[in-house]
Amino acid sequence: MSDTQQDSGSIRVAVLGAHGRMGRRAVDAISEAADIELVARLGSSDRLDAALDAGATHVLDLTVPEASPQNAAFAVEHGLHAVIGTSGWDASRREQLVAQLGQSPRVGVLIAPNFSLGSVVASAVAAKAARWFESVEVVELHHPDKADAPSGTAVRTAELIGQARAEAGVPASPDATRHDPHGARGAVVDGVHVHAVRLRGLHAHQEVLLGGPGEQLTVRHDAFDRGAYMPGVLLGLRAVASHPGLTYGLDGYLDLD
Amino acid sequence: MSDTQQDSGSIRVAVLGAHGRMGRRAVDAISEAADIELVARLGSSDRLDAALDAGATHVLDLTVPEASPQNAAFAVEHGLHAVIGTSGWDASRREQLVAQLGQSPRVGVLIAPNFSLGSVVASAVAAKAARWFESVEVVELHHPDKADAPSGTAVRTAELIGQARAEAGVPASPDATRHDPHGARGAVVDGVHVHAVRLRGLHAHQEVLLGGPGEQLTVRHDAFDRGAYMPGVLLGLRAVASHPGLTYGLDGYLDLD
Amino acid sequence: MSDTQQDSGSIRVAVLGAHGRMGRRAVDAISEAADIELVARLGSSDRLDAALDAGATHVLDLTVPEASPQNAAFAVEHGLHAVIGTSGWDASRREQLVAQLGQSPRVGVLIAPNFSLGSVVASAVAAKAARWFESVEVVELHHPDKADAPSGTAVRTAELIGQARAEAGVPASPDATRHDPHGARGAVVDGVHVHAVRLRGLHAHQEVLLGGPGEQLTVRHDAFDRGAYMPGVLLGLRAVASHPGLTYGLDGYLDLD
Amino acid sequence: MSDTQQDSGSIRVAVLGAHGRMGRRAVDAISEAADIELVARLGSSDRLDAALDAGATHVLDLTVPEASPQNAAFAVEHGLHAVIGTSGWDASRREQLVAQLGQSPRVGVLIAPNFSLGSVVASAVAAKAARWFESVEVVELHHPDKADAPSGTAVRTAELIGQARAEAGVPASPDATRHDPHGARGAVVDGVHVHAVRLRGLHAHQEVLLGGPGEQLTVRHDAFDRGAYMPGVLLGLRAVASHPGLTYGLDGYLDLD
Repeated sequence: MSDTQQDSGSIRVAVLGAHGRMGRRAVDAISEAADIELVARLGSSDRLDAALDAGATHVLDLTVPEASPQNAAFAVEHGLHAVIGTSGWDASRREQLVAQLGQSPRVGVLIAPNFSLGSVVASAVAAKAARWFESVEVVELHHPDKADAPSGTAVRTAELIGQARAEAGVPASPDATRHDPHGARGAVVDGVHVHAVRLRGLHAHQEVLLGGPGEQLTVRHDAFDRGAYMPGVLLGLRAVASHPGLTYGLDGYLDLD
Repeated sequence: MSDTQQDSGSIRVAVLGAHGRMGRRAVDAISEAADIELVARLGSSDRLDAALDAGATHVLDLTVPEASPQNAAFAVEHGLHAVIGTSGWDASRREQLVAQLGQSPRVGVLIAPNFSLGSVVASAVAAKAARWFESVEVVELHHPDKADAPSGTAVRTAELIGQARAEAGVPASPDATRHDPHGARGAVVDGVHVHAVRLRGLHAHQEVLLGGPGEQLTVRHDAFDRGAYMPGVLLGLRAVASHPGLTYGLDGYLDLD
Repeated sequence: MSDTQQDSGSIRVAVLGAHGRMGRRAVDAISEAADIELVARLGSSDRLDAALDAGATHVLDLTVPEASPQNAAFAVEHGLHAVIGTSGWDASRREQLVAQLGQSPRVGVLIAPNFSLGSVVASAVAAKAARWFESVEVVELHHPDKADAPSGTAVRTAELIGQARAEAGVPASPDATRHDPHGARGAVVDGVHVHAVRLRGLHAHQEVLLGGPGEQLTVRHDAFDRGAYMPGVLLGLRAVASHPGLTYGLDGYLDLD
Repeated sequence: MSDTQQDSGSIRVAVLGAHGRMGRRAVDAISEAADIELVARLGSSDRLDAALDAGATHVLDLTVPEASPQNAAFAVEHGLHAVIGTSGWDASRREQLVAQLGQSPRVGVLIAPNFSLGSVVASAVAAKAARWFESVEVVELHHPDKADAPSGTAVRTAELIGQARAEAGVPASPDATRHDPHGARGAVVDGVHVHAVRLRGLHAHQEVLLGGPGEQLTVRHDAFDRGAYMPGVLLGLRAVASHPGLTYGLDGYLDLD
């Protein structure tokens, strides 16, 4: 058996940010997964060396934007694969990480802005399909305690759609609206109308509506609770060792195209 | 058999505005209805007396706001029941008609701003249910050739909901939005957020979303084409003789409460 | 202030079955409600007298079918209003309770087979609307650990719909199906097709689909978790004192018609 | 400019089966397309040579299973590209056509069992996504005059899903149903539950529901009328010349993967 296969076959995870809301959920999910071993739960006051001491092969980073780059650098430096769910990884941060990974060609890193398989599939599908339909709009629906509208996921979905349509030379969605005194047509992001609903009882939901003559295609994703993110976390941990280098977005592992 | 029952049993209709889009549809629908007889199809250049000559017991008015009041007055004067689908019947016009009907206590008139049974039921239900849920929003979806946003039906639905909630002392739907730079939260009508989607392939659709802790109630109506209005037209013609006086809104015949 | 108003104004609740899953949820919900006081949490080994000792004005019964009738009889005997969420209250049990309530004309009892406001509204609406549409079918969707198909709520909804259509003389929904080798058309309950979906991630959901020429009306209810039942529990506790006698079904308090 | 580009650039279509329902729709759609020229409308009594006389570069075959193979052979023999919407092209017929196309390496043929872009995209997406979710079921909804249940499209979708899950080693969707006396769980096709709704007002609709812990992905397609198939017909005519050989299924042109 080659070293690579051993790496892939044995998954010993240190969870960073183990005491936050996502961290606790992830600890539970990993504990229930027969093929993944939880070897360390680290909080903000713990030393990263504890991951090495525990014999970790992987780190799962669910911390804060301020800490995540150092955590990733530490993992790569020590040959640990890393799955990162922390936000804040803009292009310049990712470039630095890619440079470091050049020195560790067998280490895999996944940065996942969204761990929901359904959400990732939905966004990818919507962008692919958007070239083939005359009209496309996005409706996102969330709990009413959310401060931002539209949601970050909806903005990214609209950007992907707008970019795909621009590349394919698809004209703007038709819209004869001349009178909309109160802004019922919603936000426009990269040429795509985006509507934000806030409703008690909901968690996080998104619909992409695509329309052509005589037909409609709807791609809807519902995340009912944080449990929605755990299958993606586990999939990331299982696949990261066999994907050396940096992968940005869980769709890189889903073989959707 | 009493006179009243005879009146109810025999329905001989003169269609006014028979050559417009709604008129032609109505002519077809009446022709296919076994219990309703089409006796005259009148256009804007025809004399109303032709309805009398043809032995009409009912008129169906699908004309224009300028002509509709005279048509209604003519019908009531000659003892014909009237079903009116023309817009423009504001409160002052309706009051004049009620005054005239006082002289003809056996004549029934229905003014129906919307002939779609589904739409009428959906709006009535939404208004009733809106007292019992913490949150309520409206999403309307139409073809992209529509000039106004939101739709008139959505505005009326929001007004009914807002009024029902105000009367019941229900507070505003919760909304923590602090950052909405592009207006994704849509229009606000009587305290109710209303979103307007425009999509090729659609005709006229509306969803009322009601949310409370852990649950959601959705009342959705889809009108796929003008055929959606014909069952309401026929129901109006069948019921108007047994509802003397003025009824405003098809829901008055639907026994929804 | 009259005695009646005082009764209505002060709500001191003893929860029976306080340690079960629904009981714990209800204890939390009551604790958070400013206008309702939790005075006792009783389990199966506790004496009912403890409710009296604690000064309860109301009992909330979330026990088991074997215990619920005695609990209700005890409450009525001692002048306590009762809200009952336990199943098993068939017609004969309810008759006995009505007889006892004849001796206590000021006591109110609510037996609620379903505490979800959305579900209760949805079923009531569907039954009312079903007279006006040519076609109606029911789709219920639940988590895949459920043993029965279709759900009890779906069966009751179909029965209500079937009964309403029979009373109104509406013919059966049209169906030209001649070839259905694997039973894709689902169950038929009182003439209404009922389909059961089982899907991981779901909790309890139901759609009533009503169709006529050119239009569709959809009434959908989603219960995302047990929290969905708490607004109905609280509404029952707040309203029961002003509804003396037995009320069967939360819709009796909702003023839907 | 190369010959190939000239071929691609000029689209002169002979419609075979021009007087059927699909044929008349296609004639209208082609007439409105600025970049496609309609040069012949042929019915069952017309000679195929008329297509050559009219200078056709393409044929669109919307005839019957008995006639379609000869039409295709004629087109290939004379160097015409062919878009075929007729059913009945089983594997053995397709093999014969592929053999003939070996002699005409520049001719393109598209056989499209379904011209709806939305339906094709929806099925392809559902099959790709089905590997990543614990549960998947299909609900199809059609007008009540349909004789078969489930629809052919739903059967094909379920087969694609079942095959994708089998290849990926995904276990069967979980289902604890023990009591289903009336068959509410519907048909099972290749391990996938399929439910068929029949409702007046609908045309042809399909939902694929995918569920995992805490989340749901829904891919829904609505075909409101035959107009839904025209964008796919036009896309096929525009693309067939640049896809020499036989393509089976419009998804081959959609670059979905």
